[in-house]
Amino acid sequence: MKDSPRTAEVVTTCAQIRAVVTAAQREGKTVGLIPTMGALHAGHLSLASLARSQCDVTVVTIFVNPTQFGPGDDFAEYPRTLEADLAALAPLGVDWVFAPPTEEMYDSRHTTSISVGGVTEPLEGRHRPGHFSGVATIVLKLLGAAPADIAYFGQKDYQQSLLIRRMVADLKVPTEICVCPIVREPDGLAMSSRNVYLSDAERMQALALSRGLSEAHGLFAGGQTSAAAIRSRIREVLASAKIDPIDYVALVDPENLTEVDEVDESTIALIAVHVGKTRLIDNHVLGERWAG
Amino acid sequence: MKDSPRTAEVVTTCAQIRAVVTAAQREGKTVGLIPTMGALHAGHLSLASLARSQCDVTVVTIFVNPTQFGPGDDFAEYPRTLEADLAALAPLGVDWVFAPPTEEMYDSRHTTSISVGGVTEPLEGRHRPGHFSGVATIVLKLLGAAPADIAYFGQKDYQQSLLIRRMVADLKVPTEICVCPIVREPDGLAMSSRNVYLSDAERMQALALSRGLSEAHGLFAGGQTSAAAIRSRIREVLASAKIDPIDYVALVDPENLTEVDEVDESTIALIAVHVGKTRLIDNHVLGERWAG
Repeated sequence: MKDSPRTAEVVTTCAQIRAVVTAAQREGKTVGLIPTMGALHAGHLSLASLARSQCDVTVVTIFVNPTQFGPGDDFAEYPRTLEADLAALAPLGVDWVFAPPTEEMYDSRHTTSISVGGVTEPLEGRHRPGHFSGVATIVLKLLGAAPADIAYFGQKDYQQSLLIRRMVADLKVPTEICVCPIVREPDGLAMSSRNVYLSDAERMQALALSRGLSEAHGLFAGGQTSAAAIRSRIREVLASAKIDPIDYVALVDPENLTEVDEVDESTIALIAVHVGKTRLIDNHVLGERWAG
Repeated sequence: MKDSPRTAEVVTTCAQIRAVVTAAQREGKTVGLIPTMGALHAGHLSLASLARSQCDVTVVTIFVNPTQFGPGDDFAEYPRTLEADLAALAPLGVDWVFAPPTEEMYDSRHTTSISVGGVTEPLEGRHRPGHFSGVATIVLKLLGAAPADIAYFGQKDYQQSLLIRRMVADLKVPTEICVCPIVREPDGLAMSSRNVYLSDAERMQALALSRGLSEAHGLFAGGQTSAAAIRSRIREVLASAKIDPIDYVALVDPENLTEVDEVDESTIALIAVHVGKTRLIDNHVLGERWAG
């Protein structure tokens, strides 16, 4: 299926996408899955490109999952842009798009939920109660409906990627998890479907996230190993852009998310803030190349 | 693999059993899975026989799952009889036994758990807090490790079978669930690995469960539709055998487990009691043939 870039075929039921995946696998083909909520940007497209280079069949799922939004969150406003998404995927040669209606994923009798514990508790877990249970539940459902060989996620949602790795390991889900680098705008802003919410002024403010992380990167490269010093610098950058409130600026162990005092190249800096009505997150592993 | 009844091959890692299942499926074969805690009896063997008649490859799992036992439960005492289990399976021509060590299923970093809610809340859910979360978690792990086409469970654990059906539907697990009739001793006692705990005197007492259900069956067959009347009769039979405590005697809707006032042929009678130190459960769908 690799030879003919074309508009992906859209299916809407679990039975359909499972038949696609299973048929491919029974022919000895590998299947790559990219779970998304649509409103696709270059970050999503980088996942789809990688999947297409690594797998015989590529499936993108588009589903705005209600259970991962809290009561005050932007479920109703979240951008739904299926036609544009399909157009964006066409040049990549993605084979299938799975875009189920809500009731296909959550029928009226649905009662099951997943708790991953551990890595889901701090940071986002504290600021968005219930969010990760919703994420875990929908990802597991998608991997059930479309039991791909590899599933692709972005490092932008770093804590989410840890939760998915943990869940898949714990539940023996037969899918390999691939976590891919953050894609940034030329000015450094991490790609996010929520960036469309930002006014011009807010978008300028929002650059403080990547600038703060870039400065953290520079400090570490210059020999600074004090987490307190690096955290202070990030907070200064955010404050200078009048970003408020800041949910957290954290320098943590990349595996268990515990705060560190001394950073090393594996330490990850994680930021969550509000810019106007928009909540933004960003992160950077200090020892990795700064790609902004 | 159907033509040569022989001792099943035993594997102990998830990677091994997944390779077995996946290889069979890629050859177009169907795989049947029977999850058990070992200490196999005729009930388990009936599941294995059915699997073997319906599937190309049959896998029995033997794993005493620690997370489904509560603090006061019999995890330490639970019978572990692998050699006898393999001998019992040999005449059936079961192909594979998956008997992982505890640490293969729960490594030290395991944090994930499943909550099915709904049907897990009353009855056993009230008397064995945490039990069903442990059951849901291990069943999902086993279906992840060995993604069979059909998995077989006994109706003896009726509420468990509802939970598994619900979980598999909710999480889009690509495995069909088959629930099979209770197998009884000639005197009516439902087969259970825990029956070995009973002294001769307790075993006589324990016959009151099936006798109570048989009388319930007879009352309904004779036209009685009052749940209160049928429940009273079951309780009388249990009391006459001096069974105490009784956790519950319930006449419920078979789908949602809510108590009914008027029974019909779909109504299920569920009993849980303690006989000495042994907790026993049994059940009967009023409109089904009494097989005791």
